[in-house]
Amino acid sequence: MYSFETQIRVRYGETDQMGYLYYGNYAQYYEVGRVETMRSLGTSYKQMEDAGILMPVIELKSNYYKPAFYDDLLIVKTIIPHLPGIRVVFQYEIFNENKDLLNKGETTLVFIDKSRQKPVAPPPYITEALKTYFK
Amino acid sequence: MYSFETQIRVRYGETDQMGYLYYGNYAQYYEVGRVETMRSLGTSYKQMEDAGILMPVIELKSNYYKPAFYDDLLIVKTIIPHLPGIRVVFQYEIFNENKDLLNKGETTLVFIDKSRQKPVAPPPYITEALKTYFK
Amino acid sequence: MYSFETQIRVRYGETDQMGYLYYGNYAQYYEVGRVETMRSLGTSYKQMEDAGILMPVIELKSNYYKPAFYDDLLIVKTIIPHLPGIRVVFQYEIFNENKDLLNKGETTLVFIDKSRQKPVAPPPYITEALKTYFK
Amino acid sequence: MYSFETQIRVRYGETDQMGYLYYGNYAQYYEVGRVETMRSLGTSYKQMEDAGILMPVIELKSNYYKPAFYDDLLIVKTIIPHLPGIRVVFQYEIFNENKDLLNKGETTLVFIDKSRQKPVAPPPYITEALKTYFK
Repeated sequence: MYSFETQIRVRYGETDQMGYLYYGNYAQYYEVGRVETMRSLGTSYKQMEDAGILMPVIELKSNYYKPAFYDDLLIVKTIIPHLPGIRVVFQYEIFNENKDLLNKGETTLVFIDKSRQKPVAPPPYITEALKTYFK
Repeated sequence: MYSFETQIRVRYGETDQMGYLYYGNYAQYYEVGRVETMRSLGTSYKQMEDAGILMPVIELKSNYYKPAFYDDLLIVKTIIPHLPGIRVVFQYEIFNENKDLLNKGETTLVFIDKSRQKPVAPPPYITEALKTYFK
Repeated sequence: MYSFETQIRVRYGETDQMGYLYYGNYAQYYEVGRVETMRSLGTSYKQMEDAGILMPVIELKSNYYKPAFYDDLLIVKTIIPHLPGIRVVFQYEIFNENKDLLNKGETTLVFIDKSRQKPVAPPPYITEALKTYFK
Repeated sequence: MYSFETQIRVRYGETDQMGYLYYGNYAQYYEVGRVETMRSLGTSYKQMEDAGILMPVIELKSNYYKPAFYDDLLIVKTIIPHLPGIRVVFQYEIFNENKDLLNKGETTLVFIDKSRQKPVAPPPYITEALKTYFK
């Protein structure tokens, strides 16, 4: 298992008239979580995409326990539960400043070779960077 | 079972640099789907909220089969699979103009009394409007 | 002068905790307005982009007179005030169902040849379609 | 004059299929810029709103010079050019990591008493905090 924490402050434009962080905006917070998690492993989603590997999301799940509010400084804990194959799972736990668990999520992504539009194995530098955390 | 279809055209600002409708934007399409479904039943989410009943989402699931592209005129089919209690489930199927199934989703929402911040039974006019479809 | 009207219903996820359509979301409504205006002229922004012409926005102005609210069915009136050259101006007036003027906006865009990344004259079919309105 | 710099990293979901930060998303970056600028002055927009003062935007202007790309770590420089009265102006300059000026913007906001829905003078603690910068 590998995990990494990122902070995101809720923007005004991300709230809705209920006064909550809009339920549809959590997916973008998950995106930030996994991108920063990849960066923490010495890699970058941008470089990978520039090198011809895309990672579209094929599945998303989200459970909302308590609302997040405007200006809350949230902690997005991102977890890679197993070594990625053609598919990679990221799990997310979002906490507010009081350490209340607000939301849990999970996304499944696929590594795709952009030129051939086919699923591929993850680049070796990702597997290498993760290996020490999965023995 | 009750179902209703709505059309949504993909906006430029909703795509991402992969050229796809961004995965996080489907939640907003689901929202449009369920709001129009409620309107088709002679009710309106806005009126219900003005009358003191909120419907926060507590669970979201989404499966992405094929990408949606800029300017695609999508069909959002929204299904209410069972008569709502304190919780109500909406299911979604999103198709493009070629009738390809692009995405399936499901959200669970709770009826909340705004003043007491407690779960409540759905307003009778919703149950009444739906009853004929569930015998 | 050429003008065209489009309807857009305000989504829940587009409101903010003030209960207003978030000020940043008008730009997307302008985008819908100009895309539908181009479609009304028998052309399509998508086809133009597929044919190698991009239209990035270089200037945006917006004046907010009255708020738009959730579920409002807005009218976006889009105006092309002069025949486009390398630059094209679109003006917008947004009204609610009571015909209150909520917002006025203006965007300036440039026609760009995608492969050479240089400004170009508008495609002849756009100029042709507009000519009859500008004599 | 008072100015303050904030960093924002461009999210994938904020790009469009042109590969640029979507033009409509700059308004949200301006919002982050002004909120962090207020925080740097020892105040907070959230607290002010909780205390019954809203600040809707009444005018927005934006000039786009060069595109921002996915994963760019942008600098949003926010400037308060004069002491606020009932209206307050914020100006913005957005730079990428190479110090290229990508965008300039300006917003005008009004202080509104929420309960009376009337324009009001800015709270004294804002004027006090700014005074030393404007002599």
